[in-house]
Amino acid sequence: MPTVEFWYEFASTYSYLAAERVEGVARVMGVDVRWRPFLLGPIFAAQGWTSSPFNLYPAKGDNMWRDVERTAMRYHIAWARPSHLPRNGLLASRVALVGADDGWIANFSRAVFRANFVEDRDIGDVATIADIISRLGLPSSVLERANAPQNKSRLKAQTDAAIALGVYGAPSFTVDKELFWGHDRMEQAFQWATTPWM
Amino acid sequence: MPTVEFWYEFASTYSYLAAERVEGVARVMGVDVRWRPFLLGPIFAAQGWTSSPFNLYPAKGDNMWRDVERTAMRYHIAWARPSHLPRNGLLASRVALVGADDGWIANFSRAVFRANFVEDRDIGDVATIADIISRLGLPSSVLERANAPQNKSRLKAQTDAAIALGVYGAPSFTVDKELFWGHDRMEQAFQWATTPWM
Repeated sequence: MPTVEFWYEFASTYSYLAAERVEGVARVMGVDVRWRPFLLGPIFAAQGWTSSPFNLYPAKGDNMWRDVERTAMRYHIAWARPSHLPRNGLLASRVALVGADDGWIANFSRAVFRANFVEDRDIGDVATIADIISRLGLPSSVLERANAPQNKSRLKAQTDAAIALGVYGAPSFTVDKELFWGHDRMEQAFQWATTPWM
Repeated sequence: MPTVEFWYEFASTYSYLAAERVEGVARVMGVDVRWRPFLLGPIFAAQGWTSSPFNLYPAKGDNMWRDVERTAMRYHIAWARPSHLPRNGLLASRVALVGADDGWIANFSRAVFRANFVEDRDIGDVATIADIISRLGLPSSVLERANAPQNKSRLKAQTDAAIALGVYGAPSFTVDKELFWGHDRMEQAFQWATTPWM
């Protein structure tokens, strides 16, 4: 079955929207999806950005909040504007990589996104992540595995792999080397996986 | 009839795609469209950008070119990557304002966009604009009216009106004060004009 790589960042509002819809789109299109968390921080820092572009450019930020609100309504996705953006997705991303091995990455990632963008919780706080792990019925040893040196290196390597594919924002979708940027390109990416140029 | 304001910049690739499709979308949706050229240059300069973000951020630029190519193919829109971006849309915008009064703004604007994004001509060159005016069967006095002080002020005022609505990129669409950014939000803007939140 063809596969779309779904590149996401836990701090990203549009990554949340994509995470809520991606499995449904994949199912309808008959395409596999591979969840690939990465960090936007190093990518933004390399461009000289000290924060999210939505904070650096207020007009852009204002419209993003309104657009996400409109989009969530259109797709019936739960949404509450968080009191802080961007939140630190480092630990959550490390845990998600463990979940990629164990088969619970999608469930865990959606729970983290909802904590951030529905429940307004600080996903950068280890207590929040530990609570999500517990609520999913996972052992607390997951946190130790997440913080192991080789798992930390793995997240760095995954972010480097994203950069090598040309990723500069989140969410992004890749089909082999074909890159699609944005929640609004998700369906097109899945269509590309079966029928390019359509 | 409800109206969507279509804010565009002649240097903008996605504005070109929108200009090719906007009348068809408006017709199907039963909504009027008002063509409103403006200048991105002052908006970008105010953010500290010295060129198009597609030039300042190469990964973003690379993906834009590919995305526009894919999108043009999907919608069967003629497309040839121009040898230079951004081209100077100042004179074309001034002429377009004259066309807003005389009823040929849509035809003129599409001709300018095609000169830039299909024929790879320098739309910042007065000879190119004069040729387009001539090919449309318009009198050369149009250029004089375009360069009259009150018309120059009018373009400044139109750009200020865009900024006041929160516009920060092109194309944008507004329905009263509701702002939609991007060619990929065009249908949503027209839908909003008749049925908000759908």
